[in-house]
Amino acid sequence: MVNYVPALDQVFHALADPARRAIVERLSRGPASVSQLAEPLPMSLPAVFRHLQVLEESGLIRSEKAGRVRTCRIEADALGTAERWIRERRACWERRLDRLGEYLRS
Amino acid sequence: MVNYVPALDQVFHALADPARRAIVERLSRGPASVSQLAEPLPMSLPAVFRHLQVLEESGLIRSEKAGRVRTCRIEADALGTAERWIRERRACWERRLDRLGEYLRS
Repeated sequence: MVNYVPALDQVFHALADPARRAIVERLSRGPASVSQLAEPLPMSLPAVFRHLQVLEESGLIRSEKAGRVRTCRIEADALGTAERWIRERRACWERRLDRLGEYLRS
Repeated sequence: MVNYVPALDQVFHALADPARRAIVERLSRGPASVSQLAEPLPMSLPAVFRHLQVLEESGLIRSEKAGRVRTCRIEADALGTAERWIRERRACWERRLDRLGEYLRS
């Protein structure tokens, strides 16, 4: 019964932190360098790197280095996987409520 | 910049575990007793209770005790909050891609 989907474990774990959600939020508006991402965050650069590593390992973002600048961008597929999992559970629950409503009306 | 939304921290943390997702999946098909939830899970009853506690604290489920039976049910609002957060980020990213596509075509 326990369908082990490591991708979902990692994606939801990555999203459970407010700094990591702030990074995803920033990247949803477009690619950004590590220093741009770090600037508004109240933490050290090594701490930002650790968050970026968790995000990259989850598949939510990817990064590329060109010269001395590492640019990060969002990977919409991983967001889509997580969104779909939640939506399907919610839809299943709502269909059940609808059927219950019909049953009570009949 | 870091918008601290404890509810989202807890909801995503709760969903980051395969056993807890299995419980949410089961409850999306309708309310269930703790023993019904525990039956397919390869773990002890105290471990199941700990997972249920994490889910309940996150707002994803609630439970009621009637006599000796504790029945759990899903709370769709918490699922909706998490789904909305992801959808808005993904939509923001996709609008950006659309604008980029228009720019490149023009």
